[in-house]
Amino acid sequence: MLEVRVFSGEPRFMNTITSLEEMQKIALELHKKNKSIGFIPTMGALHEGHLQLVRESKKVNDITVASIFINPKQFGPNEDLTKYPRPIEQDKKLLDVKGTDYLFYPNVDEIYPSNFQTSIAVDKVANILEGKSRPGHFDGMATVVLKLFNIISPTNVYFGQKDFQQCIIVRQMIKDLNLQIKFHTVSTVRDPDGLALSSRNIFLNTQEREQALSLYQSLLLAKKLIDDGNKSVELIKKEMKKYLKKYKLIRLDYIEICNPENLSPVKVVSKKAVILIAAFVGKTRLIDNIII
Amino acid sequence: MLEVRVFSGEPRFMNTITSLEEMQKIALELHKKNKSIGFIPTMGALHEGHLQLVRESKKVNDITVASIFINPKQFGPNEDLTKYPRPIEQDKKLLDVKGTDYLFYPNVDEIYPSNFQTSIAVDKVANILEGKSRPGHFDGMATVVLKLFNIISPTNVYFGQKDFQQCIIVRQMIKDLNLQIKFHTVSTVRDPDGLALSSRNIFLNTQEREQALSLYQSLLLAKKLIDDGNKSVELIKKEMKKYLKKYKLIRLDYIEICNPENLSPVKVVSKKAVILIAAFVGKTRLIDNIII
Repeated sequence: MLEVRVFSGEPRFMNTITSLEEMQKIALELHKKNKSIGFIPTMGALHEGHLQLVRESKKVNDITVASIFINPKQFGPNEDLTKYPRPIEQDKKLLDVKGTDYLFYPNVDEIYPSNFQTSIAVDKVANILEGKSRPGHFDGMATVVLKLFNIISPTNVYFGQKDFQQCIIVRQMIKDLNLQIKFHTVSTVRDPDGLALSSRNIFLNTQEREQALSLYQSLLLAKKLIDDGNKSVELIKKEMKKYLKKYKLIRLDYIEICNPENLSPVKVVSKKAVILIAAFVGKTRLIDNIII
Repeated sequence: MLEVRVFSGEPRFMNTITSLEEMQKIALELHKKNKSIGFIPTMGALHEGHLQLVRESKKVNDITVASIFINPKQFGPNEDLTKYPRPIEQDKKLLDVKGTDYLFYPNVDEIYPSNFQTSIAVDKVANILEGKSRPGHFDGMATVVLKLFNIISPTNVYFGQKDFQQCIIVRQMIKDLNLQIKFHTVSTVRDPDGLALSSRNIFLNTQEREQALSLYQSLLLAKKLIDDGNKSVELIKKEMKKYLKKYKLIRLDYIEICNPENLSPVKVVSKKAVILIAAFVGKTRLIDNIII
């Protein structure tokens, strides 16, 4: 799987930048040279899903920048901030091998200095689904993403479809705040058996890993029902819940069928829709979705 | 007072841009040509205070852009949005004569399209003083200012000291969101008798206009007390209130003595401080401040 990076006969390596000011200066220089910048913000613990974003960026941008920042503001008080995985050396290798030009890896104090007090809220789409289950999560996410955008001034940004609501919110923020950034949603990458890749999958034990498959299976079941002509959201949800009941380690948080443009709930599946699911598998909360 | 504008032998006139997209394109072109942009956001009804901001901008920037946008989001339900003065033709003339290069004059629907839902909050400094008396005011202000910054990408921005808290909030937002913009506070311009210029002064009748002077006079009284060695905030406030009591058309909202860096209240005046006052004069709410 190793991809050797050779540019004009010279091997090139990724630069890791920890200073915010330096990152800003580099981005400014790149813009002066008219270079397009593709940007992939991450919280590290990278998997093939993240690397797919890097690949997409490299297709069209002169320079690809990734960031790793575990953003405390998007974790709730009962969430897994301290035990969130931090395999930084492995992450660096993965990004480097895939041809990332810069990794921005700032520390928390530089992103949130002591007197920090500004926050972004995206009202309608951030207070449903994940936002309802995780109050404050999306405000924290939007705030750090806006900061990163302002530091790096990307031409294109890449987000994974697995975090579908996050995609909608960042896209809405870009539009509402008149940012001159092109947003790209990249399809969810899955393990061969269908499990959506997530940095949190490492928390699953063998049994949980097995039962976690039921999330995607329930989404495929819904797709089949719709393909077979069923249009009732109520019926589809009922069948999904019935299916998930068989898996004792699954504790469902929500299933919603929504308009994929603005996440407003649909009652009858007539045109394009997104089905979103969130569930605890043991103690690990996972999300997934499928576009119909 | 007319200043004739002649550049390389040719008179130059101000361009009024109403399209958001066009304004963004112009700003982008200017940046490509490495031109510095000075920006003055206003709500129109311009007076010498605004024009002073234009003068400051023209001293150091290649291009000076002003905007006129009466931002509905920063008016409360009981405030004077509909009767806020709108002398647009006069405003254009004033800006043009002072050498403004571009006036950005968008309509409300373009700034806030129907699905608009993003807002900015600057927590600590926006919920005291004016923020306490006018809930939501500063969130609305910060949101539109950030949008305008993103549309125009200014190098330098100019705000009047009269709206002292606004200055602190915008400066904090610029810092917190890592915007690459230099903030400038420009001293309050006053009528010869001391009244701080404000677009709202036109609402004052003769008697109110006369009594409105007491605001600045009370600030000067405070300054004198401090210059004479008084350090007790309590005493200074008491004396100011006693002075203002004589003016029957004045209904005091607040007097506060604060640290001018972060607006935290001070108890003893020992070093630099700002004294802020807000009061209704008849039905018109005015603010003023003085730095000690």
